Amino acid sequence: MNSIVSIFDLDKDEILGLLRNASYFEAHPNHKILDGKVIATLFFEPSTRTRLSFETAVNRLGGRVIGFSDPAATSTSKGETLKDTIKMVSNYVDLIIMRHYLEGAARFASEVTDVPVINAGDGAHQHPSQTMLDLYSIYKTQGRLDDITVTMVGDLKYGRTVHSLLQALAHFRVRFNFIACDELRMPEEFRNFCDTHGIPYTESTDFSTDIIDATDILYMTRVQRERFADLDEYERVKDLYTLRADMLSGARPNLRILHPLPRVNEISQDVDDCPQAYYFQQARNGLYARQAMICKCLGINVEELKNNTTASVSMSKN
Amino acid sequence: MNSIVSIFDLDKDEILGLLRNASYFEAHPNHKILDGKVIATLFFEPSTRTRLSFETAVNRLGGRVIGFSDPAATSTSKGETLKDTIKMVSNYVDLIIMRHYLEGAARFASEVTDVPVINAGDGAHQHPSQTMLDLYSIYKTQGRLDDITVTMVGDLKYGRTVHSLLQALAHFRVRFNFIACDELRMPEEFRNFCDTHGIPYTESTDFSTDIIDATDILYMTRVQRERFADLDEYERVKDLYTLRADMLSGARPNLRILHPLPRVNEISQDVDDCPQAYYFQQARNGLYARQAMICKCLGINVEELKNNTTASVSMSKN
Amino acid sequence: MNSIVSIFDLDKDEILGLLRNASYFEAHPNHKILDGKVIATLFFEPSTRTRLSFETAVNRLGGRVIGFSDPAATSTSKGETLKDTIKMVSNYVDLIIMRHYLEGAARFASEVTDVPVINAGDGAHQHPSQTMLDLYSIYKTQGRLDDITVTMVGDLKYGRTVHSLLQALAHFRVRFNFIACDELRMPEEFRNFCDTHGIPYTESTDFSTDIIDATDILYMTRVQRERFADLDEYERVKDLYTLRADMLSGARPNLRILHPLPRVNEISQDVDDCPQAYYFQQARNGLYARQAMICKCLGINVEELKNNTTASVSMSKN
Repeated sequence: MNSIVSIFDLDKDEILGLLRNASYFEAHPNHKILDGKVIATLFFEPSTRTRLSFETAVNRLGGRVIGFSDPAATSTSKGETLKDTIKMVSNYVDLIIMRHYLEGAARFASEVTDVPVINAGDGAHQHPSQTMLDLYSIYKTQGRLDDITVTMVGDLKYGRTVHSLLQALAHFRVRFNFIACDELRMPEEFRNFCDTHGIPYTESTDFSTDIIDATDILYMTRVQRERFADLDEYERVKDLYTLRADMLSGARPNLRILHPLPRVNEISQDVDDCPQAYYFQQARNGLYARQAMICKCLGINVEELKNNTTASVSMSKN
Repeated sequence: MNSIVSIFDLDKDEILGLLRNASYFEAHPNHKILDGKVIATLFFEPSTRTRLSFETAVNRLGGRVIGFSDPAATSTSKGETLKDTIKMVSNYVDLIIMRHYLEGAARFASEVTDVPVINAGDGAHQHPSQTMLDLYSIYKTQGRLDDITVTMVGDLKYGRTVHSLLQALAHFRVRFNFIACDELRMPEEFRNFCDTHGIPYTESTDFSTDIIDATDILYMTRVQRERFADLDEYERVKDLYTLRADMLSGARPNLRILHPLPRVNEISQDVDDCPQAYYFQQARNGLYARQAMICKCLGINVEELKNNTTASVSMSKN
Repeated sequence: MNSIVSIFDLDKDEILGLLRNASYFEAHPNHKILDGKVIATLFFEPSTRTRLSFETAVNRLGGRVIGFSDPAATSTSKGETLKDTIKMVSNYVDLIIMRHYLEGAARFASEVTDVPVINAGDGAHQHPSQTMLDLYSIYKTQGRLDDITVTMVGDLKYGRTVHSLLQALAHFRVRFNFIACDELRMPEEFRNFCDTHGIPYTESTDFSTDIIDATDILYMTRVQRERFADLDEYERVKDLYTLRADMLSGARPNLRILHPLPRVNEISQDVDDCPQAYYFQQARNGLYARQAMICKCLGINVEELKNNTTASVSMSKN
């Protein structure tokens, strides 16, 4: 019941609460509130970035981590079902953070155990902590989530992160620009979603500076060669959706560039030194967003922590 | 000298002491008595279940874990002897928990270092913490270890856990039923052991409800295809030793079903919801049994902890 | 700026300071001064020994560890640059300890992040914590670093450890004997280094007891088959540079035998019981040397700790 499997498990108030708590943890990342808690990170599919972020989140809050990052090392290879693995681990820990190569695996896991589950990615499906850190990055850099223009660039067809972010932003007043080649166009399902929710959007195959200049959040994604049946087509388009520093000359001062990372060529190295580059800080925001999510799943009242912190600060001033 | 390599390293009093301490840890799993201790988990052979259980045991008691779970990552691949690896690790840690694919490896390790060693499985040989958690599960569910009827089913020939449990139960008054096909019959060595120790037993190739109805502990094991020279024979027998919910209709209310896990087909999924199903709780018992074993090896007086806990509870009541 | 990538990053005073602090940590290995710190161990190349030593160092001081030991599990396989991986991890941790198969990788990493970096080995290049533990072992067993005769035996051509140690000892008054076959002779670069720095040395292809008898530190290294184009040549020389217990009959009482480990055949097992055998204790010294290095990189004033410890000890005596 306290699991977070999908960003849709969270309503607008819960999302806003998590963002406020992420802010709190950014100011107090080492608050020892997970003392005595043991948390499993079960990575049936490797994802070093996500695993290290979650493990740091737990460790900084004083919790302990057990788990595996190598699927080959599990009893799955002895024919054990996912249900049995989850029930076994549930005996040991207070929270399960899992990544699995199969869509729906995290939902299934959350249904066979009483221990809360955080989905750290199930196939191409959901990865709610990525969406929360994206939202937190927008909230932090723009000071709001309403009245934002978000331009999404690159692989809009297969990119799990852009789909989840798009849907989560439906809680707020946003406008989208979708920039992709025909092969990687934003799927009809999500364009319909925008229409249904009255979300304005434009589509373009052209990554023009006109659009960049009118953008608050530029969300870049990786165009992967393996998505193309025709490699000539890949070679033709791959550089069209690469961001270079010179394309930012007319950008708004509040523009921030996000990217779920790892980045390959789609953001040129010279962008790293631009003030709009935000993708590495974005990764750091993942730490605080995940701390907020972990506490929510464990039923820890962060509001109370804040009051106590304020109280003790007040007291120490007297 | 404080190592536990085999269940035979423990006499009856020590076993009873460990069971009492496991009970204590079940009530106080997060007692921080390993603060400042570093414990190595050296898994020369992968065993996620056992490793996670031991690592949770250490973490909940406040200790720290270092180690490896991937034998390929060790200096063994550079030609280092087991002696040198153990002597190296002994420099860093207070206790070594090791699993090795070679029979006798843990005994050898315990002889080349002054640091205590817990054997977490050496080939098909010994795995004393599995036996301790089996004993604890019987003790907890039956309220005693004497006057119990234990029925062992499946692979009684190669199953390390059934052999160790059989021998450990020789300290108590038990009766056995051995149910297996001819290929996987309980070996003569262990039948002779029963005879020598005056332990009554029956043997059968038929997994009948008559036997289940007269059983307190039903210990199921996995019948592995790779044990059969003749695959037709495997296909013929594999379903004969599968437990289904309908076979439990006449079972005693105190019957509990144990399984060392991972389970494949030998316990049908519909058994999971029967009140007699105990194999997942059994895994949890492993946590407490292992905490008791770790403390014994480190020379920590758990009796004293109990008194102090009582004392402090009493004090806080005044 | 607080990174330690090479032993040359440290001047003589810094080396002596680290040795004094290593002594302090040997007496207080569990001082909880890293509470609240998270440290990454990024092993792009496996090295269990070095990783376990660093992770123990961190854990005993109360810090937490995140990281990976399996290069295949990183985003490097998705085409991520080392720069991006380092910048990502920098968001999470207070210190990065890294091993990489490429020479110069640690220097590069230290230049793209504000988080301090400790080089735990970059290809055949630098491994400063190995050199520090070698120096600490000499300092501890001889009571000084000046007026020492060091005999290096085995693979003097490719051995990273002997080259670094040789150069670090240039800060002190030492004499060297280099014993190796022609194929593995100390390279001209390092012989020139000795000449330039006025360090006396002898060279020999003969591992004679005369030289052992006049030695304070006998530094053995592994002669690896893969270094030889001609395997007959390998077979001819491999046993010539093996140390046996009978070769120590005329050794000085203060002689200590070092080896960076893992050892294969170059030190016979019967040497392990000789009082001069020091290679396992040497590995333990790595724990304290690494604790000193970690604190230096984190800007922790160990001198102050010592004073506080003394103060509190004095106070408790009153």
